[in-house]
Amino acid sequence: MDARPRVVILGAGFAGLTAAKALASAPVRVTMIDRMNYHLFQPLLYQVATATLSPADIATPIRSTLRDQANTEVLLGNVVSIDRDARHVSLDDGRQVPYDHLIVATGARHAYFGHDDWEPVAPGLKKIDDATEIRRRILLAFEKAETEEDEDRRRALLTFVIVGGGPTGVEMAGAIIELAKKALLQDFRHIDPASARVVLIEAGPRILPAFPETLSTFAQKSLEKMGVEILLGAAATSCTRDGVERAGNLIAARTIIWAAGVEASPAAKWLGIESDRAGRVPVNDHLNLADDERIFIVGDTAAVRWKDGSFVPGIAPAAKQMGAYAARTIRAKLKGGKAVPFRYRHQGNLATIGRKSAVIDFGRIRMTGFIAWLVWGAAHIYFLIGFRNRLMVMLHWLWAYITFRQGVRLITGSTSLP
Amino acid sequence: MDARPRVVILGAGFAGLTAAKALASAPVRVTMIDRMNYHLFQPLLYQVATATLSPADIATPIRSTLRDQANTEVLLGNVVSIDRDARHVSLDDGRQVPYDHLIVATGARHAYFGHDDWEPVAPGLKKIDDATEIRRRILLAFEKAETEEDEDRRRALLTFVIVGGGPTGVEMAGAIIELAKKALLQDFRHIDPASARVVLIEAGPRILPAFPETLSTFAQKSLEKMGVEILLGAAATSCTRDGVERAGNLIAARTIIWAAGVEASPAAKWLGIESDRAGRVPVNDHLNLADDERIFIVGDTAAVRWKDGSFVPGIAPAAKQMGAYAARTIRAKLKGGKAVPFRYRHQGNLATIGRKSAVIDFGRIRMTGFIAWLVWGAAHIYFLIGFRNRLMVMLHWLWAYITFRQGVRLITGSTSLP
Repeated sequence: MDARPRVVILGAGFAGLTAAKALASAPVRVTMIDRMNYHLFQPLLYQVATATLSPADIATPIRSTLRDQANTEVLLGNVVSIDRDARHVSLDDGRQVPYDHLIVATGARHAYFGHDDWEPVAPGLKKIDDATEIRRRILLAFEKAETEEDEDRRRALLTFVIVGGGPTGVEMAGAIIELAKKALLQDFRHIDPASARVVLIEAGPRILPAFPETLSTFAQKSLEKMGVEILLGAAATSCTRDGVERAGNLIAARTIIWAAGVEASPAAKWLGIESDRAGRVPVNDHLNLADDERIFIVGDTAAVRWKDGSFVPGIAPAAKQMGAYAARTIRAKLKGGKAVPFRYRHQGNLATIGRKSAVIDFGRIRMTGFIAWLVWGAAHIYFLIGFRNRLMVMLHWLWAYITFRQGVRLITGSTSLP
Repeated sequence: MDARPRVVILGAGFAGLTAAKALASAPVRVTMIDRMNYHLFQPLLYQVATATLSPADIATPIRSTLRDQANTEVLLGNVVSIDRDARHVSLDDGRQVPYDHLIVATGARHAYFGHDDWEPVAPGLKKIDDATEIRRRILLAFEKAETEEDEDRRRALLTFVIVGGGPTGVEMAGAIIELAKKALLQDFRHIDPASARVVLIEAGPRILPAFPETLSTFAQKSLEKMGVEILLGAAATSCTRDGVERAGNLIAARTIIWAAGVEASPAAKWLGIESDRAGRVPVNDHLNLADDERIFIVGDTAAVRWKDGSFVPGIAPAAKQMGAYAARTIRAKLKGGKAVPFRYRHQGNLATIGRKSAVIDFGRIRMTGFIAWLVWGAAHIYFLIGFRNRLMVMLHWLWAYITFRQGVRLITGSTSLP
């Protein structure tokens, strides 16, 4: 009979995987449960959606990452509920996985804030299948435009609207305009891909609202110089097959990409507690449920207070810090030690603008342009999991940089637009 | 008004793409129509299905390949019929594409010979989506086995049956057994992936029937040494979710892969003529329809007589020769010259057996083992289209060779087995 306490981790994103690794040599049995078999490096997912990288370049099998960790097993499964009295997690195939400590790290997914009917026409970008779907739609729009004889329909096919001016929206807008103006340039005979319209809609007064204003301005000017139209100060009020309605006007577009918001995974529902408006689970300063210190909520699923009443942002370094904190706290408890409260150390914000520019806010240090892009690129390569992925991503970037071509322009799945 | 004759090519496989390239500087307008936007290097598709390569490593956008060819346009479209009197091709969206010369190069697809109901449980391997689906099923079978408590069901999950002992079947069998015995070895806690059964079923008296008997024997011994079970001399009589029935026995298996046969694309139907039993279109020795020298049928769609009453085999070099012949003949006709009959030059047969062995039959020269694998590898890298793909495939092979790991072990799409 194995007497070691059982630590169950839900989700192998940045938070969950960091927690699992930090428990490698702890006297516990770790069970990692994820509904996918891979860890996804989400910060580069937009490059899969825009045909620079292949899914395998930014995803590593969870088993493979944790294979040498003898105290850890990996399960593929969908959580349906958590029984806090019986202390087990129930999966959709009826299995029950008992825990002594539970780390909930199931992340967030894109949300339409009461407009779920927009999802079919305005997909978001959270999973690999989302990325290949968006890639399919973008490439197919150019294909359909090539043979479309009606001028209005052709314009709509060549119009790409991105809803949401955060880092994902900015990165998608930059990558799509470069695809149109560089990679596809000589590929067509009846359309000029460079005539494509890329429109970025942000409800607030500026793009990249989490960044200092000077960086927002830099990003806006850079994108506009590349040809992106930026519309500020009014939200999308409707997304349909005809396009996006905003401020009473219809922007006719066949491709809409949703980057306007996320909500936390249904962890609150599994736990039978109240979430905040963004679906996040409120935690105390030990990242525990207020009345249950066996349960940690970490990463994008947790509502963690930070400075000035704001919340810890939903970025990879924050998720990693929380995952590491939960593991450290469990280790400390096992030794009879006392847990110190979680403190978020904000390292900065990064966003790329196309193939060779970026904005970086490290607090005192701010960077823009090519130097910022180099730092952004180096950071992303460095944090990619697995030497193979690092090598491949570097090669793909080098290739795209030298040739101005994206190599992964494959339309997989259906060849009809929705 | 452009008076140049219109050459329409259906299909951008080896035959069609070779024909298009050979017409680059000819005084014609070329229209390439394919239902996919990429040319697929099919000989390596089994490596996508077995998680060594990514789809983009063996597929290149057709537009990209033909972009610098000013007389050529590329259309994404599905052919529904060919009107030989009006001389146009009809696509499923209602478009009609007129031709002066038509090259039909639409290839073949896997066929179940009257058992189409087997397809859902025994998918074949012709398209990229087939390969990612087979990869999904193989990887998911191991995942499900890890948590399956019933011994019989676990055995069925860990049993992989390949129906058909030609090169594709042999290559799949070798790759799956290596995946189980090498790549996944330490990934699981409750099952031993190396205990997986890989069964190769061939109805005839030996595997690789197109090869000399000594090479069949070598391949069989090699596969058996690797752990593959080979069952000869009786065909599969039923494929269901329970497994494969053969010679009155059920082989309980949750994963079945169909490599037992192909039939030509429905070109005969589009043309309103009789096909042979394999769906191929009979052609004269100029690869034309007997009564219509404007239409060439090339590649796997054509039934071309060879020596001893057999047919030209459905392999890439044969398809390329036919594509080049059609282009050459059109060029000759435009100059008022006379067309010489098509003559197939057989260069040889190749098949790999796992990660470092192969059999090659170059007629007088035969090779087996590692040397043969090197020749096989060099030939495949050489014939891959695009420098980017050559580099990436080399790197992936080197990686898999050094680490014994396949890097592309992603389950995309649903995480349920059919």
